[in-house]
Amino acid sequence: MEVTKLNFEEVFPDIVNDIENASFLCIDGEFTGLNNGHNVNAFDTPAESYLKIRAGSMDFLFIQFGLSIFTQDEKTGRYKNKTYVFYLFPRPVNRLAPDTRFLCQTSSIDFLVSNNFDFNKLFREGIPYLNSSDESQLADAMEVKRSYKANQVKDSSPQTIPVPKQFKSTIDSAMKKIDQVVNGKEIEVKIDKCSGFVRKLIYQTFEEKYKNVEGIILKSEGGGMLCKKGAEDLMEEKDAKELAAAVGFSKVVREISAKGKLVVGHNMLLDVCHLVQRFLDPLPPDYNDFKEMIHTLFPKIIDTKLICAEDAIKQTINGSTLEMLIDTMSKPPFHLPEIDGEEGYSYVLSDVKYHNAGYDAFITGTVFLSLIRAIDPDNKTSSIKNCKPIEKYMNKLFLMKAPDTCMDLVNPDPEPSRDHVFHVTFPKHWNANNIQKLFSPFGSTQLFWLSDTAAWVSLYQREESHKVMKALENSSKLPSGVTVLSYQRFIREKGAAISPRPNKRKHGNENASEEGKRKKSSPNDMRILYSQATKQPSLHFEVSYFIC
Amino acid sequence: MEVTKLNFEEVFPDIVNDIENASFLCIDGEFTGLNNGHNVNAFDTPAESYLKIRAGSMDFLFIQFGLSIFTQDEKTGRYKNKTYVFYLFPRPVNRLAPDTRFLCQTSSIDFLVSNNFDFNKLFREGIPYLNSSDESQLADAMEVKRSYKANQVKDSSPQTIPVPKQFKSTIDSAMKKIDQVVNGKEIEVKIDKCSGFVRKLIYQTFEEKYKNVEGIILKSEGGGMLCKKGAEDLMEEKDAKELAAAVGFSKVVREISAKGKLVVGHNMLLDVCHLVQRFLDPLPPDYNDFKEMIHTLFPKIIDTKLICAEDAIKQTINGSTLEMLIDTMSKPPFHLPEIDGEEGYSYVLSDVKYHNAGYDAFITGTVFLSLIRAIDPDNKTSSIKNCKPIEKYMNKLFLMKAPDTCMDLVNPDPEPSRDHVFHVTFPKHWNANNIQKLFSPFGSTQLFWLSDTAAWVSLYQREESHKVMKALENSSKLPSGVTVLSYQRFIREKGAAISPRPNKRKHGNENASEEGKRKKSSPNDMRILYSQATKQPSLHFEVSYFIC
Repeated sequence: MEVTKLNFEEVFPDIVNDIENASFLCIDGEFTGLNNGHNVNAFDTPAESYLKIRAGSMDFLFIQFGLSIFTQDEKTGRYKNKTYVFYLFPRPVNRLAPDTRFLCQTSSIDFLVSNNFDFNKLFREGIPYLNSSDESQLADAMEVKRSYKANQVKDSSPQTIPVPKQFKSTIDSAMKKIDQVVNGKEIEVKIDKCSGFVRKLIYQTFEEKYKNVEGIILKSEGGGMLCKKGAEDLMEEKDAKELAAAVGFSKVVREISAKGKLVVGHNMLLDVCHLVQRFLDPLPPDYNDFKEMIHTLFPKIIDTKLICAEDAIKQTINGSTLEMLIDTMSKPPFHLPEIDGEEGYSYVLSDVKYHNAGYDAFITGTVFLSLIRAIDPDNKTSSIKNCKPIEKYMNKLFLMKAPDTCMDLVNPDPEPSRDHVFHVTFPKHWNANNIQKLFSPFGSTQLFWLSDTAAWVSLYQREESHKVMKALENSSKLPSGVTVLSYQRFIREKGAAISPRPNKRKHGNENASEEGKRKKSSPNDMRILYSQATKQPSLHFEVSYFIC
Repeated sequence: MEVTKLNFEEVFPDIVNDIENASFLCIDGEFTGLNNGHNVNAFDTPAESYLKIRAGSMDFLFIQFGLSIFTQDEKTGRYKNKTYVFYLFPRPVNRLAPDTRFLCQTSSIDFLVSNNFDFNKLFREGIPYLNSSDESQLADAMEVKRSYKANQVKDSSPQTIPVPKQFKSTIDSAMKKIDQVVNGKEIEVKIDKCSGFVRKLIYQTFEEKYKNVEGIILKSEGGGMLCKKGAEDLMEEKDAKELAAAVGFSKVVREISAKGKLVVGHNMLLDVCHLVQRFLDPLPPDYNDFKEMIHTLFPKIIDTKLICAEDAIKQTINGSTLEMLIDTMSKPPFHLPEIDGEEGYSYVLSDVKYHNAGYDAFITGTVFLSLIRAIDPDNKTSSIKNCKPIEKYMNKLFLMKAPDTCMDLVNPDPEPSRDHVFHVTFPKHWNANNIQKLFSPFGSTQLFWLSDTAAWVSLYQREESHKVMKALENSSKLPSGVTVLSYQRFIREKGAAISPRPNKRKHGNENASEEGKRKKSSPNDMRILYSQATKQPSLHFEVSYFIC
């Protein structure tokens, strides 16, 4: 079911109820972009990846949230599903509310429209939201404004702007109309469009003339003014209403967090980061604080992409995008679950609306149930209760660029071997050919650009690593300007903290099959030329990716 | 006429021809936002205003350009009109092209959709563009790629990635299909969707097996692959086509610049800055270089908003938004011109599509012709030829926040008196009431926040200025933490270069009628709370604004 500002308040109680009864929740998000050039690199540690995401991805907007709620019938073992897809847009509810500036990445926007994302609906009907810190700022600002207005009313000598000659007749004719309302001859009158300054003068004249008259409202409307009989809403009540409207969608995320249900996503790191930053609280600068924060807010999380990276599963699938997974899981040895979707609230697989956050969340749930059955074959109803095999994946987040490790929210992150990885520096005129030639005695390599003059080189044949160390590390035979260091030594010597700055790397895909050059740096920092990210305009990096 | 990527190439020759024959061109732009918090202040010099615009407004996207072409018939004196409205979106034409990141301001987006701006059309059908510097970078990158590919072909020992076991059967079945084409049994075959890595393996196997076979194309398509008989386009030709497509709309702006016709806009500073930065060349850091650059690129410019700020005109109008101006000019003493719009290419006033760049450009032309008649009453056909009175406004750009000065592109900027302006600092807990009370002996004041603890105060009664100097400047009777300096003295003591950083000012409108507080700074630099700009979500600051 689509949820916009038009039906949000009406639907919200149902959502609360559905979350309360859920067996597990699947989530998915769509964003206006992926990164501002702070690309995560294959051999970044999880902590470095987090810092880059925090610095480079959080300025994009969370525009669509899919919440797919799966509830297992205890008797039949069948799953029911209700899926909500929320359009989200932080339209300021009033002039005190934040006027958010947000980034968009052209390729991401292009990708979304090509998947039929409706931006007009988003901008017109998106539900507003505030995280807790913005909410308290807005509440404070409203209070200050109320107290200022109260003092202004008490003030015996309000300042008066002299009315410039050219506006005298306009003000006079407006006042004549207002008189009609004050004298009870009209219930309401409209004053023609005029500039903000003229409106101010009219308001000032009205205040002076009718200081002691109550029950008349004069306010701006559609570029002009409206004067009518009536009483203003109590300011405090009006503010409370506006504040609640401003918090808007954040209530849903707060509800998800409060209920502590199992939350499942597919490649969900970015979703989780945005979910927290936009709707709950700003992400902390420290990685361990981040892990603790996420675990506190969402005590049970499973990332289906991590299950797919498991050797036993990986060998039976062709790729781990949702689309490929559904294709794989509709054939043996997998079983697709039968799901009872509530009418008007759910999908069937044949809807095929990939990259709609609702459909993707629903598909994630379908894949999750299929995976449970695959890793726990006796569990024919894919029940999550007492399902031991899924515990292995609990509270771990998949890392797209480094699928051999993960973010473990509870324990220290795994530290896979990097013995086959080398840090190489080279002259600016070098390209992928030169680097590959340097390593050609040791078999095939994979290249990860760090800059115009540095890259990670990883060997397919890991057993060749010691030969590289002997032949290239510290070799005096290397071409001028070329250095080769083992991963361990590089980290030790340079310190693990590679600063999270935009990768101005040469053009080349992950396997370095082609190469282009960034000749000049762009005058505009926000235009990252030839960055790796430009080449897979996918909102989820959902490209099967293998590190040798 | 609407111009999108679907009809741009077809319409372009007409546009060139229309510009060639034009008497003058009117322009208007719509953007995804106004400023990132680097607000221009009322008493900034034109140079400071420029620096703030360059630092704070250029990251927003130019999404719609209106070009309204007015051509006077020499015999009848009547004007013909053709108006083009271009949807602009810098979709990367290929993986080497820049993947632009751009800013959006929520209130501006909200304003645009509420004026029926079609974002789906924009993102789907927008015409791409590149400025000259990005164009030459892309051309260079294409050349490097071609030469890399050429070298790769020559390379006798291309690197081979070992095929992982789990992909063997997929690769084999793909190769069986490809064999069908190579053996002439099929004209084309499709290979099912698979991951990028699998596609790479298929391509590698194909290259190995059919190294010497020509006339077979194998390429990615829709997530899978397509193999067919045929010859690849020559890379150089393909690149040239893609480069031309990437330059796209910029050709129009280059044409406008090359022809040197009179260009008219209404409050056009931001339009001109974006026009140059996005489609021609990056804006320079130096203000005088900027003036010279604009004058070189557009040798004849008139800003109708500047004509409206002229005393004689100002006194006859209620406000100078386009809507108000048309309203004013449809009554005596003004005359609206009769314009012969070409069918399907123009507007009539009653179309009322304000904030559509095409309609606004057309209305600007209508207002311009009306203003010519008003300032040059004998010029009944509003001819711009030999119209002396408009020369006064030639090559001067209106400054929204400082209508008593302007940017003079040819001469030094005017330096209006600031004798009635005072720089005030005060404790954090002060609000507008406190400041107004301080100045109350000298009549009404206007307040311009600079920060939580500083503001400009300007007197309505200029003749009171010397009294302020006596009473407040350097007075020992001022409350603790309060200082008052004359404008001149402040500039002299602090240096004119007020750094262009976001104004974290208190909430309050230009006349300081109300006040709110920014309690904490936002965790996200892009969310400027309570900034002045948030309060008039207009794309053109088109609010009548008077400096006392």
